[in-house]
Amino acid sequence: MAGAAALALKDAGREEVDAIYIGVMNVEEFVGDSNFATLLADTLGLTGIPSTRVETASSTGAGVFEAAFYAVASGHLKNVLVLAGEKMTHLPTAKTTRILSEVIDRSERRYGATMPALAALVAQRYRREYGLSLQKLGEILAQVAVKNHYNGSLNPYAQFRKEITLEDYFKSQMVSYPLRLYDCAPITDGASAVVLTSEPTRIRVSGIGHATDTSAVRHRASLTSFNSTKEAALKAYTMAQLNPPDIHFAEVHDAFTLFEVIGTEDLGFFTPGEGWKALEKGTTLLKGPLPINPSGGLKSRGHPVGASGLAQMVEIVWQLRGEAGQGRQLEKAEVGLAQSIGGLGNNNIVTILERSDRKRTLTEGWKPDYHPEIKALKKEIVPPPTDGKGSLETFTVLYATPEGFRSPLTLGLIRAPGGELVMACNPDYRNPMELRMGQKVSLNMREGLYVFEKRSAWERLKSWWKKKK
Amino acid sequence: MAGAAALALKDAGREEVDAIYIGVMNVEEFVGDSNFATLLADTLGLTGIPSTRVETASSTGAGVFEAAFYAVASGHLKNVLVLAGEKMTHLPTAKTTRILSEVIDRSERRYGATMPALAALVAQRYRREYGLSLQKLGEILAQVAVKNHYNGSLNPYAQFRKEITLEDYFKSQMVSYPLRLYDCAPITDGASAVVLTSEPTRIRVSGIGHATDTSAVRHRASLTSFNSTKEAALKAYTMAQLNPPDIHFAEVHDAFTLFEVIGTEDLGFFTPGEGWKALEKGTTLLKGPLPINPSGGLKSRGHPVGASGLAQMVEIVWQLRGEAGQGRQLEKAEVGLAQSIGGLGNNNIVTILERSDRKRTLTEGWKPDYHPEIKALKKEIVPPPTDGKGSLETFTVLYATPEGFRSPLTLGLIRAPGGELVMACNPDYRNPMELRMGQKVSLNMREGLYVFEKRSAWERLKSWWKKKK
Repeated sequence: MAGAAALALKDAGREEVDAIYIGVMNVEEFVGDSNFATLLADTLGLTGIPSTRVETASSTGAGVFEAAFYAVASGHLKNVLVLAGEKMTHLPTAKTTRILSEVIDRSERRYGATMPALAALVAQRYRREYGLSLQKLGEILAQVAVKNHYNGSLNPYAQFRKEITLEDYFKSQMVSYPLRLYDCAPITDGASAVVLTSEPTRIRVSGIGHATDTSAVRHRASLTSFNSTKEAALKAYTMAQLNPPDIHFAEVHDAFTLFEVIGTEDLGFFTPGEGWKALEKGTTLLKGPLPINPSGGLKSRGHPVGASGLAQMVEIVWQLRGEAGQGRQLEKAEVGLAQSIGGLGNNNIVTILERSDRKRTLTEGWKPDYHPEIKALKKEIVPPPTDGKGSLETFTVLYATPEGFRSPLTLGLIRAPGGELVMACNPDYRNPMELRMGQKVSLNMREGLYVFEKRSAWERLKSWWKKKK
Repeated sequence: MAGAAALALKDAGREEVDAIYIGVMNVEEFVGDSNFATLLADTLGLTGIPSTRVETASSTGAGVFEAAFYAVASGHLKNVLVLAGEKMTHLPTAKTTRILSEVIDRSERRYGATMPALAALVAQRYRREYGLSLQKLGEILAQVAVKNHYNGSLNPYAQFRKEITLEDYFKSQMVSYPLRLYDCAPITDGASAVVLTSEPTRIRVSGIGHATDTSAVRHRASLTSFNSTKEAALKAYTMAQLNPPDIHFAEVHDAFTLFEVIGTEDLGFFTPGEGWKALEKGTTLLKGPLPINPSGGLKSRGHPVGASGLAQMVEIVWQLRGEAGQGRQLEKAEVGLAQSIGGLGNNNIVTILERSDRKRTLTEGWKPDYHPEIKALKKEIVPPPTDGKGSLETFTVLYATPEGFRSPLTLGLIRAPGGELVMACNPDYRNPMELRMGQKVSLNMREGLYVFEKRSAWERLKSWWKKKK
């Protein structure tokens, strides 16, 4: 973090700033330090300067940028150092997974749900809603991984500077069915920094939007898009007076490959369910008309959770200035957008940066052409019955379980007869091929957790007979 | 926290806000949740609203207020809910102490130093520098405790609503010599909330100042005042165009009784070393000319670490509005000041609130009459020798040790011949009467920690003889 700060201060030609804003997601548990904003100010040789830590889960890098932006925009501070980072690689993976899982609502985390497990539940639903075969979904996701690894191979700051092939993707191990290792952003140590100033510079902040969603994934009306991205995007476009077609390139939070596809849909770049078609057409390649993740994204640049949101902005600044370097520099780069996801899509931030020399005027009462469908939440969340039945809305088999959970672990969301979703596990199923979405299941409470089981034709006949009598 | 938020929203007559700013110091370790800003937005029924967590150690409540203030002052947000809290009482005290100790620089924490231990090192120095006997120091500190418990007895939101006597104080157990249980703010669950708005209201934010200091206590030029308070105060007075005599009352961060005395000196209310005289004269009583901690302070209102800074503002608002209630309501309350300490005095924030109907004008180029002496840091911190000698600058015997440390634990700061301070422990001394400040000690490295020992007259003679030869 000190290294990133030094580079940013040098780039800005400053030795002093009015304040420091620190973005770090969970330094308390990853490193065991608290009062971290003070420690960093002192470490940077900026003892005395006010220092504040800001956190919004895995969108922290964008959250700290937003807070610092308001501080400068208020006129009370002129020059602010924004510094974000995370140290993650020194712990055993199961412990890191456990710490990362604490962003998940307690009611779902206690089943052993991890971020990849919840992303897998989303992936299964995406596959079902848009009629994609398992093979087809794999091919789509593989293309995201191959593209972002290629972009990252050109980025000297990327964690993985190697290209991968479709074959590598399909050979990589299953983390949480149907998501493989190459679908998941890695565990990373890293930092990013920018200096925000009220003085004129080459880049200006055009738009910032920020929105939350339900803490629990099962309380959402849709699993295949994120309300929080859509609401944040609407605010950012409105503030910037821009529409999706005005954006030249974007950094999209690809913590999981599918999230890049969903992100490009939620941001209004592509029709819902068709983001993968644009991917297949090459639209989002470095040389395509709308490059996505020229930096290599979280997938290849790495995902130090607190830093990623700010690292996106750093890439955008380099691209806007024409400093991204041979191979990675985009031809048309005057307006860039960053989308950052906090938690499982429930604290999302969209930021638009623009070249200051780009001539355009702002209009009073401007309205965006982008009208996302924000799916309403259920107003009342009915507590589900302790025993009952339902249908299997989505499921995954999790192989990389957190500390304290046996692997593999089958998790599902069950649609109860009242319409609400219930998280449930099953310790017996180990083969995802034994389950299919939409099938009828029974739901029982065992030791405080819901357990689901397939209902055989015979059981369903018995139940029908009983009801008939 | 939901309860405090509901009361603040009701008081403001609002059901919706543009954003939520959450202050919580270490929810990760106290409660085991991350992504807490999202969880709270959802819990409050404000799902969708942007929610950001801000943290500055134990001044978090003031830090989150500052960040939210800038957001509103920027013009980008109109109404913001600021909500701060901490849940602490459910863990064993040794574990809570260990978590709280993580705000201390790692180089000092590894000796077993806790917040009360470091505060005791400060208290010993204060006693030495201003020539106060142990008995006299106790009498001063007892008066802070008695005053704040009396004020708290009138506050329906205080954790302890009981008065205490000087006798109770002297009977209370020693936590870290010379500080007793009644010198230390308690472990508390609590929350506070305010709504900030760009619309005209009865109260306005006149001044905010924020400053840091060295992470390690031993790197400071002075132990008996806090540069961070003085710098923060100077900024707040300058922004507000006010001077210390203009303040009608203040909430001062009395995490330890002595910190109230030091705080009133650092804020420019009293001459350094004479804060206790004002206390003895009754100046800081509810009926005195400059009431300090009318709420009961951290000592009696309680110290839920993330919430305290904001709870101070809530008290100030009630006092300014004349709503503090029978007994506690101050007669003259048009300008109030809150001072909040992060860590051991290294992330401090001063906030000044004022009645909006108070008539005064702001002047271009206004300069404060308050000119605090900011003690310079040593520019170069010389690593101390592994063996050597020095003099005992200050010491304490810590009885309430953190998880993993034997009680009692003797800790000292040793002034090495090069002038730098070295933290050292001694497992053999258990009686503070065996040590005195200023005495010569030897310093040895054992198992990676400095251990100090008294040098006897005979040892000093030997050393002198050796040097002479």
